[in-house]
Amino acid sequence: MPDRSFGRALRRLRLRRGISQEELGFRASLHRTYISQLERGLKSPSLKIVRQLARALGITASGLVREAERAQ
Amino acid sequence: MPDRSFGRALRRLRLRRGISQEELGFRASLHRTYISQLERGLKSPSLKIVRQLARALGITASGLVREAERAQ
Repeated sequence: MPDRSFGRALRRLRLRRGISQEELGFRASLHRTYISQLERGLKSPSLKIVRQLARALGITASGLVREAERAQ
Repeated sequence: MPDRSFGRALRRLRLRRGISQEELGFRASLHRTYISQLERGLKSPSLKIVRQLARALGITASGLVREAERAQ
C-alpha cells in the first residue's frame, strides 16, 4: 500500500462527513496543518495517530486502514 | 485500544504461524529486539511498520489492526 493511499482515504472519509481539516484536527487533537500533510501523503502516521483519527471520524482504526487499502 | 493490545496481537499471530521473533524480524526487515519491544508494548509502530509486519505474517494491515482491536 503506497503511503499516499492513507492520505486519500482520510480525505475521502473527512469530506463524506462534511467536515473541514480544522474540525477533524479539533476532534482528533491534531493541528490542521498536520491533517493537511497527512492527506497529501507528506507525513506517515503512527498507529496511535491512526486511532485518534479513526475515533474522530467515528470508525475503527482497522476500518480506516481498510479504507486506505481500498484506495490503492 | 491500549498500546499493549497491538503487541499481544502481534505475538499471538506470530506464534500461530510457529515462527520465532528472529524469523518474523527477518521476513519484515526489522531487528528481533524491535519485534520483542513491539510485542511487549514498549514501542508503538508507525503505519508503515504495521504494513511490513502484516506482509510478513501473510495478512493485510487492516487485518492486523483488527486483531489488535479484538485483543482489547
